[in-house]
Amino acid sequence: MRIAVLGTGTVGRTLAVGLAAAGHEVTVGTRDVAVTLSRKAADPMGRPPFADWRGQHQGVGVESLAEAAAGAQLVVNALSGAGALSGLEAAGEGNLSGKVLVDVANPLDFSRGMPPSLTVSNTDSLGEQIQRRFPGTRVVKALNTVNAGLMVDPAGLAAAGHTVFVSGDDATAKAQVVALLESLGWTDIIDLGDITTARGTEMYVALWTRLMGALGTAAFSIKVVR
Amino acid sequence: MRIAVLGTGTVGRTLAVGLAAAGHEVTVGTRDVAVTLSRKAADPMGRPPFADWRGQHQGVGVESLAEAAAGAQLVVNALSGAGALSGLEAAGEGNLSGKVLVDVANPLDFSRGMPPSLTVSNTDSLGEQIQRRFPGTRVVKALNTVNAGLMVDPAGLAAAGHTVFVSGDDATAKAQVVALLESLGWTDIIDLGDITTARGTEMYVALWTRLMGALGTAAFSIKVVR
Repeated sequence: MRIAVLGTGTVGRTLAVGLAAAGHEVTVGTRDVAVTLSRKAADPMGRPPFADWRGQHQGVGVESLAEAAAGAQLVVNALSGAGALSGLEAAGEGNLSGKVLVDVANPLDFSRGMPPSLTVSNTDSLGEQIQRRFPGTRVVKALNTVNAGLMVDPAGLAAAGHTVFVSGDDATAKAQVVALLESLGWTDIIDLGDITTARGTEMYVALWTRLMGALGTAAFSIKVVR
Repeated sequence: MRIAVLGTGTVGRTLAVGLAAAGHEVTVGTRDVAVTLSRKAADPMGRPPFADWRGQHQGVGVESLAEAAAGAQLVVNALSGAGALSGLEAAGEGNLSGKVLVDVANPLDFSRGMPPSLTVSNTDSLGEQIQRRFPGTRVVKALNTVNAGLMVDPAGLAAAGHTVFVSGDDATAKAQVVALLESLGWTDIIDLGDITTARGTEMYVALWTRLMGALGTAAFSIKVVR
């Protein structure tokens, strides 16, 4: 499948490599390709410049958000929570129309310090905001409950299987995303219901951040025991 | 230990029985003992009248909130989220002073329909509200991530162990609560940190309610896989 991964941060890079390894034709979308490729220094998070990463992953395309979305059969939102809506605007409503959009972003608010709070929660969610803004796109919230490494390598945890969730209004779109998740190695996938259930997985992030603090690692996940 | 369980709903009743079975001297606290014992009909949730339940559990005391708190070494807040602060006011700041208060309540808001939203979240929590209002009490948030049956019988889930969390500012108080949880059968207990981490477990309830809808049961829990 031709997949556009929007976002060049850790999540975008890791998803691009993982999806390419699973046999997909992956293009990373960024706001300005020339600017992104011209950066020479590590970013504020200490990540090596995108161009260096790209040099090691020549099989992954790099295009503008709009070009990447236009050429894709399925789009992944791996932009930051704060940048998601504006980035998807730049990708273009027409380029996203009719397509499945896998939203893995969380609406993190770092303005109050660490751990982050959420810019939207409780009675709304980022997943719903995106679905409302792009009604012709079939939004499926998924993978936002684990760190980037586990998204594409759930077996990276030595322990037995853990759980991933999907939320969305379109059953066919969810079935496609479930198949994609299975191709990445996920075995325990719970369909929570319509896109409003994205509130559940986004608000879980408030527990995830505290667990990261308590455990001293982001390499953990949850198994729904039933 | 002499334990006061404040609240006569399903959570209060189940905790009272479970803690008594674990060898503790348990008194249930209610706003008005005479009124509570005089109710003849099932409540709006379909629970049998409290007096019927009491008849089957003679070993459990019933007193006013203030009497129960005054006589207890450790107090459990099993009041509804909406009734927690006023109920604890009725219990009396002096009667709670210096004591460990295990807060198992969630700030559920049913005013917007089902599933409930939260009355406080994201930048504050019920646990913190209680700690701020009763600074002389040592509040430990715990058990609010599972239904009442699992609180006192974690082995009720056939699957392997699952996880329970504690949040609180006082390390000694948390150690006491961890010992209490172990006496109920809990084996995987994670100390999330200070009372602000109660935001994490309270906000997880937004995922819990959607999981209950998707799974069709409240008899589930999560295991933190790491």
